[in-house]
Amino acid sequence: MNSIIVLGAGMVGRTIAIDLHSRFDVTVVDINHKHLEILSKNYSIKTVHGNLSSEEFIKKIVKNYDLVIDAVPGFMGFNTLKAVIESGKNIVDISFFSEEPSELEELAIQKNVIAIIDCGVAPGLSNIIIGYHNKIMKINSFEILVGGLPVKRTLPFQYKAPFSPVDVIEEYIRPARLVENGKIVTKPALTDAELINIDPVGTLEAFNTDGLRTLLHTMKIPNMKEKTLRYPGHREYIKVLKDTGFFDQNSIEINGVQIKPIELSSKLLFNEWKLENDEQEFTVMRIVLEGEENDQYKKYEYILFDKSDEKNKISSMARTTGFTCTAVAKLILFKHYLSKGISYPEFIGAYNNCFDLLIKDLKEHNISINKKVFYQ
Amino acid sequence: MNSIIVLGAGMVGRTIAIDLHSRFDVTVVDINHKHLEILSKNYSIKTVHGNLSSEEFIKKIVKNYDLVIDAVPGFMGFNTLKAVIESGKNIVDISFFSEEPSELEELAIQKNVIAIIDCGVAPGLSNIIIGYHNKIMKINSFEILVGGLPVKRTLPFQYKAPFSPVDVIEEYIRPARLVENGKIVTKPALTDAELINIDPVGTLEAFNTDGLRTLLHTMKIPNMKEKTLRYPGHREYIKVLKDTGFFDQNSIEINGVQIKPIELSSKLLFNEWKLENDEQEFTVMRIVLEGEENDQYKKYEYILFDKSDEKNKISSMARTTGFTCTAVAKLILFKHYLSKGISYPEFIGAYNNCFDLLIKDLKEHNISINKKVFYQ
Repeated sequence: MNSIIVLGAGMVGRTIAIDLHSRFDVTVVDINHKHLEILSKNYSIKTVHGNLSSEEFIKKIVKNYDLVIDAVPGFMGFNTLKAVIESGKNIVDISFFSEEPSELEELAIQKNVIAIIDCGVAPGLSNIIIGYHNKIMKINSFEILVGGLPVKRTLPFQYKAPFSPVDVIEEYIRPARLVENGKIVTKPALTDAELINIDPVGTLEAFNTDGLRTLLHTMKIPNMKEKTLRYPGHREYIKVLKDTGFFDQNSIEINGVQIKPIELSSKLLFNEWKLENDEQEFTVMRIVLEGEENDQYKKYEYILFDKSDEKNKISSMARTTGFTCTAVAKLILFKHYLSKGISYPEFIGAYNNCFDLLIKDLKEHNISINKKVFYQ
Repeated sequence: MNSIIVLGAGMVGRTIAIDLHSRFDVTVVDINHKHLEILSKNYSIKTVHGNLSSEEFIKKIVKNYDLVIDAVPGFMGFNTLKAVIESGKNIVDISFFSEEPSELEELAIQKNVIAIIDCGVAPGLSNIIIGYHNKIMKINSFEILVGGLPVKRTLPFQYKAPFSPVDVIEEYIRPARLVENGKIVTKPALTDAELINIDPVGTLEAFNTDGLRTLLHTMKIPNMKEKTLRYPGHREYIKVLKDTGFFDQNSIEINGVQIKPIELSSKLLFNEWKLENDEQEFTVMRIVLEGEENDQYKKYEYILFDKSDEKNKISSMARTTGFTCTAVAKLILFKHYLSKGISYPEFIGAYNNCFDLLIKDLKEHNISINKKVFYQ
């Protein structure tokens, strides 16, 4: 039986560990005893208490495992990944760190390691779909719309953050890069707002955020964009806060004290955007891509809609991120994906039959993706 | 010739001094040299540099004058008023302090002083109108709607503060007291929002703020309310800020530093709500009151609409506040108003022919109030 070590037992790390433990020998590492107890008490999962910000500790702990899952918070992700690659271990990463992963390419090749980055929903599943189509056709344009939303809509924001509000706000202030007519174009976040009807949700509002990430460089597609989905109204209030300076990252002086407005705003919005216990939420993603396939115009539409698992108390965010990650992990363990070095999910979509295997795996986890094909 | 001393030469104090100097011997006191220079260079107005937070200084400086105008900032108003009353000088106050003026009643009577409080627009002119009608009829209900707004509407807030944003925010958080069926009722600020069409402005939004002040206690009228007017949309964004905690007055900790959200918000909104140089603004007030007059149902509507004086560069806020104040000052100087002790403007409206004299004086300053009478 293959052995897997999951670094980080937060909401997603935990979901990954539980999903994998029925077929593999799973160990989980976290600094938080409570996170570990949930797993050791209820499942045959080994737990190790430890500090994953220590490179030495990481290298020691991963030594005896076949595969590592990197589920630490984003700010720790890059260093964790580097330590694991240096240990010569294959790794699937869902930490969504902000550093440039290609910096580790040479090291990964030298250590003969498979390291797959950004294995969530978007980035993640979206890249896999684009990568698959990029192999079988000449894509002219694609648009990814994606959002994670609470079922209960409460004014004013109608939003709950499944991760830290600072990271959400960061998406609202970082300029969005998209590709138009083959050129990278930068637009302010929150721009190009439009109302979109998506079944079974109804009307949502889409706007620019900087979500294309590795696709900007790995794909030669003339028109690419990714937008974030929220309930209509959310963006308007966010824009008021942003335009008034509440998200400013430079300190201002208040009564002799230096304060960054964004830090105060994150603190206030943390309360406002906190998911209640077992609050129902869902993930919705629509990808539309079009181009030429076998000398014919073709357009594809993928719609993913996934709800929280009420019975097992797993949020949709954890389900869609975690199960994409475990599906990719199995592609490595069962030797369907063999490419050494740093891989992005779009590489997996383009690799042999990995796309079909992954979609099948997600379906077994009750994550179904509605696919439509249009001919002109 | 009567001599008048104006304490404070801010935007309103300055307007008052200039208005009075053509008929009276006027002296102005301020701590800011620039404020004084504007007056001494261009007008035959005496100026004194000094610190009005010193009680001793106030008592010394007011000694040789017939009347004092209290135009200091609100937080200094009460102490200044007290010092002037102790000096035995008649005074008209437009500092809009938050302390309880009736505390000084005994002192004012003992010193044989006329002290008139809150002589602006609302409170001020609104109270004078209510006081007048309360004498000539049995008012059943009245509603005061009032706002000062910029001509240019800029999103998101469509608002510029003619005074400190902290004081504006204070109006948005202090619970509003109104009178319904003879009982004082407290409602959160910003509630009971409604769209109102007022010529020549168009559609404005009215909502509860705590503006009745002395009327709550001086009037025995079963239904009384005052609401603030803003452009539609303003209130919605203010409510988002308020509901999210951006106006909280309790400190929260950000990286080991204690900060009051309202202080950060005031600082950010100060930039956002700053009137540009010579930016045009206007004052609009609608008072509707109804009841029984000579055994007949009667309804009165007063509409005040006043714009900035572009030629003389006087804002409408300074015009309407300042000229109500100077009109009241003249009622004292010319012995039309003789009542000793602390007076509220509603007392003036009810006193002999003071109401007619005041309306006439405002008209001479080009502040006209449109009055309509309805019979059932």
